[in-house]
Amino acid sequence: MAGGHDGGIIADLSEFRTDPITGRTVIIAPERAGRPNEFQNRRAVSRTARICAFCPGNEKETPPEILSYRDAGRADEPGWRIRVVPNKYPALPAHEVIIETPDHNLTLADMPLPQAAEVLHCFQERLAALRRNERLQFATIFKNQGEGAGATIEHAHTQLLALPDVPWSIRQELEASRSDGEASGVCAYCRMARQAPESRRVLDSEGFTVISPYAARFPFETWIVPKDHGSHFDAVGGEGLADLAGVFQDTLRRINRALEGPAYNMVIQTAPLQAPPLAYYHWRIEIIPRLNKIGGFEWGTGVYINPTPPEEAARRLSGEEA
Amino acid sequence: MAGGHDGGIIADLSEFRTDPITGRTVIIAPERAGRPNEFQNRRAVSRTARICAFCPGNEKETPPEILSYRDAGRADEPGWRIRVVPNKYPALPAHEVIIETPDHNLTLADMPLPQAAEVLHCFQERLAALRRNERLQFATIFKNQGEGAGATIEHAHTQLLALPDVPWSIRQELEASRSDGEASGVCAYCRMARQAPESRRVLDSEGFTVISPYAARFPFETWIVPKDHGSHFDAVGGEGLADLAGVFQDTLRRINRALEGPAYNMVIQTAPLQAPPLAYYHWRIEIIPRLNKIGGFEWGTGVYINPTPPEEAARRLSGEEA
Repeated sequence: MAGGHDGGIIADLSEFRTDPITGRTVIIAPERAGRPNEFQNRRAVSRTARICAFCPGNEKETPPEILSYRDAGRADEPGWRIRVVPNKYPALPAHEVIIETPDHNLTLADMPLPQAAEVLHCFQERLAALRRNERLQFATIFKNQGEGAGATIEHAHTQLLALPDVPWSIRQELEASRSDGEASGVCAYCRMARQAPESRRVLDSEGFTVISPYAARFPFETWIVPKDHGSHFDAVGGEGLADLAGVFQDTLRRINRALEGPAYNMVIQTAPLQAPPLAYYHWRIEIIPRLNKIGGFEWGTGVYINPTPPEEAARRLSGEEA
Repeated sequence: MAGGHDGGIIADLSEFRTDPITGRTVIIAPERAGRPNEFQNRRAVSRTARICAFCPGNEKETPPEILSYRDAGRADEPGWRIRVVPNKYPALPAHEVIIETPDHNLTLADMPLPQAAEVLHCFQERLAALRRNERLQFATIFKNQGEGAGATIEHAHTQLLALPDVPWSIRQELEASRSDGEASGVCAYCRMARQAPESRRVLDSEGFTVISPYAARFPFETWIVPKDHGSHFDAVGGEGLADLAGVFQDTLRRINRALEGPAYNMVIQTAPLQAPPLAYYHWRIEIIPRLNKIGGFEWGTGVYINPTPPEEAARRLSGEEA
């Protein structure tokens, strides 16, 4: 983050703070402390039957919707296929939840393909809308599925969080990929999509390569990398999106089969909102099953210990029937 | 990590890999996949009664000891007060476990003060021993307490992991603190210990200040910072160590009271093994209670969302009776 936001209050209560020595940025977000299961004792979780705020009929349990794709009904009424609402416990003002389906029992992996494609289209529509706010520099689309991955609500949803600055680690990646690209003349991720060895390939479609990355931080970390160069996810057209939806579902189903439906995090890495198309940055989807715990070594050093060689993960995932 | 280790095989099976674009390093450690509870299904944890490998009488359950402090007995026999053994599932060759007490029911927070001081002394002795191996550049001493923090064994223990290179994030911190120090003429951490506002102070002893850091990544993240400048933890003398043991236990007990005995990670941040005393780096202890889950946003951006303002954490911890 730029120094200009140090200590500045962004949301009513959220605040960016940059460590004066390392430059590491955090968001202090006391509004999030009110979430239903925040800090609840993990040893004594009793899942009381609560109504699901994301199910049709319970629209009043969320803040008013920002967007919906509907077959019937008016805003904040049933009849929607996909619904976007502000996060009730926002870390920042631009913190949205995309409710992917009215069906409480479906997940992104097993919903009908056209629905999955429409979810991806919805992500694109929200990115395009947020881009029009020139104060927003960066947006991350991410999913925490399963309690072990940080989810507090079971009903299938993805989150979108937009920031007034480009995060430090993203800046570093942008800089590193630019200098690599300027030296080699080729986008490093294009090279990755084309040249990843067979031993780390999970599957291929016309437009996408699914790989276990060379330096995977986590066991079974899996990336979906577009074969055609593009820095911004929301520039992908309709045909590409249908292809992506199929590959994304196929990948999630393979992970579910191989690992018995693990909790996972997903993040769509895409170029900064206000950046023009970049020659040497490449959007992609990263999927991180949450199989191992992160401990003091990782917090202390920033080095991740991954007990599963990426080649083994790719072998297991590529062998799974989707 | 230096590029020289990219892809190099360090342990029999462990391997450093550096992401070709970002420079981010990981350790691929398939030996660790054999740990008893690795990838076990968290939804159906059945804690079968196993014998504790760290209890007296079960010394044969661990690899032969590297060091012990004893009242009686020979190596790998009962009679020890503290015992250091190689990690049975090492991420790297220099991966040790310091068993802090023969008593299965004691923790670092509640053992007698002289025992806690002896544990710290043992850490120092191991650091000094590893420094004599010139191939080892960096060592981290860390503790994962509680299953939620990554611990697989309940009996009180700390780990020590030494690396053939200084991790990337530590290099960045060394560089940042050096350039800050050269510009200001004062070590940034000395300034932090002396000038932290009352609102972020938890407690003070003669030699140490306990604070909630300004840009805390995690709720109730707490640092123990020595008031006197020193870059290497193992240069602290006996009196300082007794003071530190008291402050450390006091801090842990306050955290236990305030948060009902949470899982936590602890890491001793100390200068690289082979570095001379550094004017602008400062050793310290970081304690991270594991209260919230890390999700897709954090993995994707490197930015942590902390729902507890450090000032609130400090207020709660400073008010706790120790």
